[in-house]
Order: sequence, then C-alpha cells, then structure tokens
Amino acid sequence: MEPRPAAPRPRLCDSLGADQTPSASTLNAARAEARPAGRRAPAVAAVLPAGGSGERMGVPTPKQFCPVLERPLISYTLQALERVCWIKDIVVAVTGENMEAMKGIIQKYQHQRISLVEAGVTRHRSIFNGLKALAEDQPDSKLSKPEVVIIHDAVRPFVEEDVLLKVVTAAKEYGAAGAIRPLVSTVISPSADGCLDHSLERARHRASEMPQAFLFDVIYEAYQQCSDYDLEFGTECLQLALKYGHIKAKLVEGSPDLWKVTYKRDLYAAESIIKERISQHICLIMDTKDENHVGHRLEEVLKDELNHVKVTSRLPCHTGRDLDQIVSEQCYSYVCVNVMTSDFEEIRKLVNMLEESNLSILYPVVVISVYFLDYKSVPFDQKMENLMQIREYAKEVKKRNILLCGLLIYYPQEQYLAVQYLEGLPHA
Amino acid sequence: MEPRPAAPRPRLCDSLGADQTPSASTLNAARAEARPAGRRAPAVAAVLPAGGSGERMGVPTPKQFCPVLERPLISYTLQALERVCWIKDIVVAVTGENMEAMKGIIQKYQHQRISLVEAGVTRHRSIFNGLKALAEDQPDSKLSKPEVVIIHDAVRPFVEEDVLLKVVTAAKEYGAAGAIRPLVSTVISPSADGCLDHSLERARHRASEMPQAFLFDVIYEAYQQCSDYDLEFGTECLQLALKYGHIKAKLVEGSPDLWKVTYKRDLYAAESIIKERISQHICLIMDTKDENHVGHRLEEVLKDELNHVKVTSRLPCHTGRDLDQIVSEQCYSYVCVNVMTSDFEEIRKLVNMLEESNLSILYPVVVISVYFLDYKSVPFDQKMENLMQIREYAKEVKKRNILLCGLLIYYPQEQYLAVQYLEGLPHA
Repeated sequence: MEPRPAAPRPRLCDSLGADQTPSASTLNAARAEARPAGRRAPAVAAVLPAGGSGERMGVPTPKQFCPVLERPLISYTLQALERVCWIKDIVVAVTGENMEAMKGIIQKYQHQRISLVEAGVTRHRSIFNGLKALAEDQPDSKLSKPEVVIIHDAVRPFVEEDVLLKVVTAAKEYGAAGAIRPLVSTVISPSADGCLDHSLERARHRASEMPQAFLFDVIYEAYQQCSDYDLEFGTECLQLALKYGHIKAKLVEGSPDLWKVTYKRDLYAAESIIKERISQHICLIMDTKDENHVGHRLEEVLKDELNHVKVTSRLPCHTGRDLDQIVSEQCYSYVCVNVMTSDFEEIRKLVNMLEESNLSILYPVVVISVYFLDYKSVPFDQKMENLMQIREYAKEVKKRNILLCGLLIYYPQEQYLAVQYLEGLPHA
Repeated sequence: MEPRPAAPRPRLCDSLGADQTPSASTLNAARAEARPAGRRAPAVAAVLPAGGSGERMGVPTPKQFCPVLERPLISYTLQALERVCWIKDIVVAVTGENMEAMKGIIQKYQHQRISLVEAGVTRHRSIFNGLKALAEDQPDSKLSKPEVVIIHDAVRPFVEEDVLLKVVTAAKEYGAAGAIRPLVSTVISPSADGCLDHSLERARHRASEMPQAFLFDVIYEAYQQCSDYDLEFGTECLQLALKYGHIKAKLVEGSPDLWKVTYKRDLYAAESIIKERISQHICLIMDTKDENHVGHRLEEVLKDELNHVKVTSRLPCHTGRDLDQIVSEQCYSYVCVNVMTSDFEEIRKLVNMLEESNLSILYPVVVISVYFLDYKSVPFDQKMENLMQIREYAKEVKKRNILLCGLLIYYPQEQYLAVQYLEGLPHA
C-alpha cells in the first residue's frame, strides 16, 4: 500500500515549539533548559542537492527518485527535514529533466516549505544555486536569507533532529560544522602503476558525512570566491569554508543512520529499516486492570513471542495521560482491548490523537480494536451493527494512512467466538 | 525454510577442473585459453579471520554468526570459497567461545576443506594464527604449505571466483595483491581540537577491501618480523607485506559486491540480495515448439509481468544440451511445461541434473512441473495416480533443498481444470 498524501495539520516539534529555533548546545539541553535570555536563535534553512544521476546504483532512475515501499527516497528525506519545525525553508536543487517529477512528488506527498531550483552540473554548483536562491531577497520571493544553512543529501533519509541541532549549534559557534563517522575500510593511496603507495592510519581519519551546517554568509562568500576547479572537482563543503571563509569547521560524531544510499543494496537496507521502524513497538491499551483478563495474557504472549519488539501497555485516553508519549516515541502499532465498554468512542479518541500527530504522514499506523463481550449481555445483532460502524470509520481513516481493524471476541463463557472486520492490513 | 545440510557431491568448478589451479591472468583468459605449458599453477589456500565481536552491529551476536535467511552469515562466505575448486584449504580463526558453534555450523551445512584455529585478540593475530597452521607441516596435519594464500573476511559473503582469481594471479606476479573500491565518502583528517584539519582528495584514494592474496612466504615472513604494535593496531595486510616483505602490492578493482557486512542494515541488504539472486531468473522448459501453445503464451506473460526477471526458455533434457548452461548461470526457478508426455521422467532428469550441480546447497531451487492433458485422452484416475507419484517424489527431493510442485491442467477443449499438488513453496 502506498502511503497517502498527507493533509496539512499541526506537526510534532520534538524539541522546540513552532515559533522557536535552536540555541542550546545539544538536543537534551534544548529540551531541559529554558533558552538563555537575550541570545537570539538563528533562522535556519536547508539546501538539498538532488541533481545526481545515480550512476553507481546501476539503475536508470537517479537514486533519490528510486521507490522505497513505493514512495520516492527523496520524499522520506524531505519529511525528515520537515518534521524539524525550526527549519524554515528547504531548497531542493533538481535537474531540468526531473523538475516536473519533483513537483509531482511535492504535490502527492504534500511537502511543505520546499522551494525548487535548477541543479548545476556538479554537486557544488547545485548547492551554490540553492544558496543563491536563499541570498536573493527579491520582492516576490517567499525565501529570506537565513543565519545558518544546513546542507544535506537527498539520499540520506534517516537524519534525526538530534544531529541537525548539533551541527546548527556548532556552526553558529564555529562558522561551519559537519557530521563524521569512523571509517569502515582502510583508505589507501595507489601509485601511478596501480600498486599500493601507502595506507592511511585508520584511527587518524574519518568519513565526512552529512548533514553539515554553515553560517550563511561564510559559505555563500566561500562559494562566490572559489575557483571553477573547486566547483568542478571539489567534494567537501567544509574544506571550502575553511579555505575561503577562514573559519574553523567543527566535526560532530554522527550515528550510523546517516549513511548515504549509494548502491542498490542500500535501497534494500532502507526498505528494511523503514519496515523495522514501523514494527518495532506495539502499544497495548487496556481498559481493565484485572491481571487475569485475557488482555493481560495477550501482553505476556506478545512479549514472549516477539523478542525484538517493544511491548508497552497503557490505560485508555480518558483515564491515562501517557499516550502522548507513546505517540512521540513513534509507535506505529496499537492494540486496544475493550472489556468495559462496547462503544467505540475510545478508538475515535485514539485515532484523533494519532491524526493530530504527524505519525501517519510518513508510515502507515495500524490500530486493532478488540472487544471482549459475553454473549449473554449484548445481543449479537446489536454488536454486529456496532462493528459495522467501525468498518465505515475504518474506510474513512484509511485515507489518512491509519489502518483500523475491529475484532470482536464474543464468548459463551469459556469459549471465544471471533468475528473480524478487517479494512486493510499493513504491507510491512 | 532453512536451507538443508548439504550432502557431499561433485561441485561445479566454473573456470577450472577440480585438479587444476589458476594460472591465467583473468577468469575469461583462464576459460578461453589453454594453460601455458611448463608454467606451474600455484597451490592456493585461504585464511578467514572470524574472531570479531561485531560491536558496530549493535547486537550481542558477532556479525559473522548473525542469521541471514536462518543461516549464519559465515556459512555463505565459506560456501562462496568452497565453490572455487582450486582453493585447497580454508583456515578459519574463531575465538574459543565460538569454537563449538563454528563446528556445529560446519557439520550442519557440511562444509568441506575447513580447518579451525583459535583467533587472536586482534585481526592481525588471528590471520597470523591461520598462517602458522598452514606453515607447519606436521605429520598429523592434513594441511600443507600453499604457494599463494588468500586472506578474506568472514563478513563478505558475495565474493566471486572472478576477483579471487585476479588477486591470486596478481599475487603470484607481484608478491601481494588486494581488491579496492572507490571511496563513497570524502575522507578527512581531524585536528586535535575536533575540527577539520584537511580533507583528502577523493580521486587519489581508494578503500582497501578484501579479498587479498600473497605469496605465502612473503606474508608469513612479514608477520614473523612485524612488531607488536603492528599486530595490535595495524589493519592493512598489504602494508605489512610492503614494509617487511619488500614486494609490490598490486591493487585490483573489485565489484560493489565485495562490501563488508558491518552494520545491522548490511544484514538486511544481504538478505535482500540473496532473495533477489534466487528470484531473478526463471527457466521455462517446454516440450513443444508449437508457438500457439499456452506454454509459449506463459513465457510472454512472464516476460511482460516480471520486468526485472530474466525469462529463458529451453528444450527438455532429452533433446537439448543447454540446460547445463542454465544451471551454471545460477537459475533457481524452473517451470517445465509438458504437453507431449504424461510421465514424469523429464522432471526426474532435471532434478538429477540440479542435484549434481551444487546449486541447491546454498539456496532452495523451485521446480514447477505443469502437465497439459486433454481430458478425453487420459482417464482422470490414471492421471491422479501419476500426480501422486510426483507428490511422493517431491517429499524426497525436498530434503535436498529442491522444492518440486506438480500442476495438472486437465482441459475439456477450451476450458482448463487445474489440479494442484504443492509440496512446498520457497520462503523467498
């Protein structure tokens, strides 16, 4: 199933409110402390060069447009940046031939805050074009010059707010900053005759990854001053900032998630990571505290059987306040066990809460609503009617990428009779 | 389904007979040309350091023992080396605590030509232990000193004979040789204060990968001479050979398949690659040349519907000679369309041929046998009895990792009535 186009709605802002921008030195600090008075938070924009041809992938489609679970890779990356509410503008550089396709992606997945510019023939020229669009304060432009600009790759979809905040904060202090990772292989220098000249000491070197961040004036001036050779053959923005901006470039340790989708196998890995993210956490919502109830036994069984899945249990919305936290922990699977009530108001509340988060914009959310009912207490016909309502409701919320499934366990004393209404199951 | 333990049987030797060893400079050359008279082929062994703890993977199991489609990763790597018939011995260095697990893997998957030695505390010490086992010509040892030794990683399962032959041939000429790949990320050198000191020109550097190969005496003497510091902190065998062996180390461009399983995402990628390999080629075997027959229409439909799958058609074993080639191209899916005969001797012939190859040792092979029969010509009972025989036969060959499925299309003129007997479907 294809994730649905997202309807605009309020977004989660993990660390800072929508009208705030980062100023503390780490995410945790930003979360824990009030912003120091009198210290202005920088305006932040992002530039994404997406003009690559993907020749290393061995497929005709450039890698940023390759589908992962039927959605183009770049859409995941845009979403990862959009979720960070303090990034005001995102400028994407695409080639003329992919411009219409990119517009289609923005429309289909309802991406926000995106501006498109034409890519250059090299990565540096694409970035330069993106910076120019941000620098020009034209009357009809909705863009304005940021204090700090993030440069990221379209093919690194798993970037987290944490590392974005770290590079932005370090760039404000140093002028430039970039994520690094340990080297996976030893790096060697070949001689002219194709033999080993020397190998580099692995501990003294790092792989330069993305995201990077710069004081806008520093990197824009560096691009204006640098040579054609730099624009054609250079790969490292930090090096340009160092050479022409005369600042220090701070290096920030990144997580393994920052890796770049380069080869076809990386697309496989990206798909599996997304599937895993969706299925790694199940939240059980139970309206009974009776530990002998089968709902609690379900919790035990899930914990036993699914070793790699986190299983949490919560009280329903009307009694508990901690569902918000589960949603912010990116749980995509919910099982609601209803013993006390036979109406489905609780499910409506949960689905509303899920809709108000941006959780289902990126990946589908699954909600299974289970009703335990003694067949003596409620007439079967009445219950079926109730379930038909859920079925209708499920059709409605499926459009918003929430897959709701109603399950009635209708039991004559010890035996259970199950009646199921499935509106859709996740592809993952 | 778990791949079954392999029974010993003759192995495919892609480029050279079982009693031959490489001497030509490339695989194609080895295939195309006769071996130059008077030029002795080297005896080749391989050493696999497998003592790593897999700390980068973020899981408690060392990565070489992590399951991929329920089979430990190292088993795929061993199989990749075993398929190369001119590698006489494979020495694997594992830690004491994993020794029993490794013995279990060798027994379960019936690996051949493997000797185990205890791993050292570093990669270099593990390799040194492997080399010592090959150097010592003890009376009770089944190992003998090779002329050339390959060093490979247990976590690079997709190594092909092609690159092994290239490094061995270059090692014989130069003394040492290793596979390299272009850098994916720019490499930088940090300063003491965690800032960028300088970035390396990407075009002038390469990632050093595996396999590598050495004249045995060169690398063994290098390990005997090198310092404790080298053994503790060095990573690059080529550098040791250069420093202590005073030879040149030839660099050989490798394919992207040589990548090292390092992070959890790499396990996902490995699994997907294996699944893709199994399902990328379907061979249709048809005993009719009538182009209007539905079997030929099946070929067209498969070609239309499965864009990424190679669909080949062949004549059956008793008339055609090119099935051998299909088997050597690693086709794992066969559909046999039988129009002319109603017995299943052809299927037996095909299954025998598959058994004689080592194809199903590594991955399951699927054979679907389809019989088209006019209901007027053969009594239904007789045909059912025939199919029951296939069902029994399917149970038998399933033990050898061949999944056979019989499908009877029993048609009254224009209409088809299908009766299916499925013994098992592949997990891929």
